[in-house]
Amino acid sequence: MDPLRELSEALCCLPGIGPRSAERVVFHLLKHQRKRGLLLAECLKEVLEKTIQCSRCNNYSLKTLCHLCADETRDKKILCVVELPTDLAAIEKSRCFNGYYFVLMGKISPMNGVGEEDLELSRLVLRVQQENVEEVILALSPSIEGQITSDVIARQLAPYVKHLSQPAQGIPSGSEFECLDSLTIRNALQNRGVLTS
Amino acid sequence: MDPLRELSEALCCLPGIGPRSAERVVFHLLKHQRKRGLLLAECLKEVLEKTIQCSRCNNYSLKTLCHLCADETRDKKILCVVELPTDLAAIEKSRCFNGYYFVLMGKISPMNGVGEEDLELSRLVLRVQQENVEEVILALSPSIEGQITSDVIARQLAPYVKHLSQPAQGIPSGSEFECLDSLTIRNALQNRGVLTS
Repeated sequence: MDPLRELSEALCCLPGIGPRSAERVVFHLLKHQRKRGLLLAECLKEVLEKTIQCSRCNNYSLKTLCHLCADETRDKKILCVVELPTDLAAIEKSRCFNGYYFVLMGKISPMNGVGEEDLELSRLVLRVQQENVEEVILALSPSIEGQITSDVIARQLAPYVKHLSQPAQGIPSGSEFECLDSLTIRNALQNRGVLTS
Repeated sequence: MDPLRELSEALCCLPGIGPRSAERVVFHLLKHQRKRGLLLAECLKEVLEKTIQCSRCNNYSLKTLCHLCADETRDKKILCVVELPTDLAAIEKSRCFNGYYFVLMGKISPMNGVGEEDLELSRLVLRVQQENVEEVILALSPSIEGQITSDVIARQLAPYVKHLSQPAQGIPSGSEFECLDSLTIRNALQNRGVLTS
């Protein structure tokens, strides 16, 4: 096959790039960005060949232990359970959490054939027991599947941990009431806080 | 730097991918498309390292002579001048042209500092003379800059070629009148064809 067409087709593995835009990308790289395109090829190879999952928290990492699990200055008493490495990355970016993580790599989803046994819950329970974790935050997505998964995990962890919590549900910052869905508004009103004057 | 973040930043060289979507792309590739991502890295390297411009028509090619110029079955008497390899690719895709091409790699654009001397017009004139071309189609973009460039080329080629033409300007197929701009409608009405009954 023509190598340019082959590259166009290969680019379609990127979300948001279809056959037409792929062609434009190829010519854009050839004309304006050869050096950066070559750097991209190198980074892609490096990351996709060498990335494994952290043996302790399942996060993506180039080492057996990811940089978060290897950081001994973090708070061992608090563990945050998330669905995906992207969720972990978003929480890390907020710089408001200093404990450790456990990445489920999914959630219970009968529609997609993912059951309780597909998530490594026994490893999570074992870790909570062995490391004397005091609080587990279940930071799963606020969907029905996320809630079911949270419930299952909460039941399994309850005997071994003092505090089980989940992030507050309410109005996201910077939003406007008229753009919010009813469920969000209902949660925000039900969980309303007291204003002290 | 963290290799995952390095890859995110490298992905931003692709048009349409910003820092936020780059991050999503990295996790998407890691989770679902490692093999295709590695194939993409390979194709990128191959194409960006080895692609040169055809010595005859300027089209992108992995050889000194591109596959179109190397194809001796095409019609030597007709030459199509285009701005960019993308334009050539679009015309080739339409399968309605069987002559050879000359890619200007730009157009006269005083705003972007591109003058007549930056396009290899002398090479084009020489080629038209040497190859006894009978018709040159000036298929530049229907913009003011494209028209100026067409005029300059037409003046230089006039002594050496029998027919100079340019693609018809009018209503694109599948369009609706209400969505067309006034200039397109004016061109379509001015260039109207006679219906034979």
